[in-house]
Amino acid sequence: MNKLNTENSENSILKLRQALEKNLEAVDQEIILRLNKSIPLIKDIGKHLINGSGKRLRPLLTLAMAAQFNDYSKNPIILAAAVEFIHTATLLHDDVVDESNLRRGNKTANIIWGNEFSVLAGDFLFAQSFELMVETKSIDALSSLASAACKITQGEFQQMQISNKPETPEKDYFEVIGKKTAELFGASCKSGVIVAGGNIQQQNAAYDYGFNLGIAFQIIDDLMDFNNLPNKMGKNLGDDFKLGKTTLPVILAWQKSNAKEKQFWIKTLKELNQEPHDFMNAIEIFNKYNIFEDCKKKTQEFISLSIKYLEIFPDTEIKNNLVGLANESIERSN
Amino acid sequence: MNKLNTENSENSILKLRQALEKNLEAVDQEIILRLNKSIPLIKDIGKHLINGSGKRLRPLLTLAMAAQFNDYSKNPIILAAAVEFIHTATLLHDDVVDESNLRRGNKTANIIWGNEFSVLAGDFLFAQSFELMVETKSIDALSSLASAACKITQGEFQQMQISNKPETPEKDYFEVIGKKTAELFGASCKSGVIVAGGNIQQQNAAYDYGFNLGIAFQIIDDLMDFNNLPNKMGKNLGDDFKLGKTTLPVILAWQKSNAKEKQFWIKTLKELNQEPHDFMNAIEIFNKYNIFEDCKKKTQEFISLSIKYLEIFPDTEIKNNLVGLANESIERSN
Repeated sequence: MNKLNTENSENSILKLRQALEKNLEAVDQEIILRLNKSIPLIKDIGKHLINGSGKRLRPLLTLAMAAQFNDYSKNPIILAAAVEFIHTATLLHDDVVDESNLRRGNKTANIIWGNEFSVLAGDFLFAQSFELMVETKSIDALSSLASAACKITQGEFQQMQISNKPETPEKDYFEVIGKKTAELFGASCKSGVIVAGGNIQQQNAAYDYGFNLGIAFQIIDDLMDFNNLPNKMGKNLGDDFKLGKTTLPVILAWQKSNAKEKQFWIKTLKELNQEPHDFMNAIEIFNKYNIFEDCKKKTQEFISLSIKYLEIFPDTEIKNNLVGLANESIERSN
Repeated sequence: MNKLNTENSENSILKLRQALEKNLEAVDQEIILRLNKSIPLIKDIGKHLINGSGKRLRPLLTLAMAAQFNDYSKNPIILAAAVEFIHTATLLHDDVVDESNLRRGNKTANIIWGNEFSVLAGDFLFAQSFELMVETKSIDALSSLASAACKITQGEFQQMQISNKPETPEKDYFEVIGKKTAELFGASCKSGVIVAGGNIQQQNAAYDYGFNLGIAFQIIDDLMDFNNLPNKMGKNLGDDFKLGKTTLPVILAWQKSNAKEKQFWIKTLKELNQEPHDFMNAIEIFNKYNIFEDCKKKTQEFISLSIKYLEIFPDTEIKNNLVGLANESIERSN
């Protein structure tokens, strides 16, 4: 995919970024301010991650949701910074747990500074996110994000438990990605509506939009481990495969595989006994059973559902772009 | 020290425990309830720690502070459980960072379940603590504990930075233990007063009592690495020495040491080049310069200060025992 197409496929995100440019800058300033107030090493680790060309998708959702109510006050900005801190904290700890060495094309913090510092820096960002949330004085926003934080760690646990198990039922996979990814998408959206004074129905609809969008994003992310160029995500192609992670393509392929193919999955993903050509063999099995198409169909269902939940909101340019953002998310995988 | 003396030296803690027995039981029930609602492995790790004969000192402080205002409602119980979760989360991550293998006489979680699970379990307990706090709907209590959580991780970072540096100035050591230990003592006390409806002066006095008590506790804890029986703390004697941790006895001894003794500290603590008899050599230097007595004198100053901050509270049996608890804390080291 060439650069032009990438931009086209993320048209709505760009429009949202433009519309909310000043608020996004304020979020970045808030993030830098909080990091600067901490001790030098935390600052370095935090900046490494925050500057690591992250998309700021979750803070953007918080800001966009609040902007639907014409709320451009400080509270959505503070919450958006908190959301990014929670996300960044989970990335830091994820990389320790996964023993990753590359994220978004950069060396991971655990490789540069060691596991000890990554654990502590994650703890700091996490605690700092709660200090930020407290400043909004919104118990409801806090409650939503605290609940998401709790579910993220449960999801990470459950992800480890289904790892190296291609026979995992689909519903277990969806439970895992619901907790580890979609909950924070949901809470990012909901908390924006809460501080902007949306009613309960709107708060819940925002959560449902975010949650379903998050599921779609995670499926696409998992898909990109198998069919994307490494420089697009900055993640190494086949990283998940090497670790034997149980993702949707693997689960769907396992279900359709014959005895010989099942032996292949057992050898490569359960026993982690992998030879150089095994990654290509896996992709051949995926192609044989149209697994990528199946995954995209499922993704589309979640995208359609997420968009449906936006109906309750007034028709604005922001809402149009939130619809577009969801629709375009599937194009990342092409 | 025989068993009888141990009991005498913790007379006030026992009296507080008796007076608040029902509430302490409710805290334990709350803790178990939250762990049971999570996934099995988190439950196991959490129970391993929670049941690990911890003293529940911090939750006891929260309950006692609230009880001074005759508040025996649910809020102090919920906060006390949250405080214990924060404390337990930091222990889990501490043991990963320190690569410890023994805590309170038991194998540490990182040894039993591995670093990955310890990191995630700590994250879960931490997130769960915020879910609990949110239930009290007290932004002020949340603020106090979120701030403490933030400072704890900063303190841990700074502790790593002064490690293997016996030449560290005393004030740096006090900054470290202030953040990593005393802040949570302070917030545990303050949050109890907040939810019980104490005024600002009382809230601040509770924080100051807890903070100074926490400093005293940490000095004694550091002292016990050198002059206590291993089965009393469950910690291995000389653990800190082996890691080259910079604690008060080391700092004070360095200040008084002659050139030859400084060489000894450099070899053992900076270069971690230790031989079996070095631990006894260290104790000989401590004894030569009366270091343990110096440490206790300093501890006594913090204890006296902490007690002074209790003046603002009404004279009750609970307050008497909070005074006693502070006074008796120094006896742990005898």
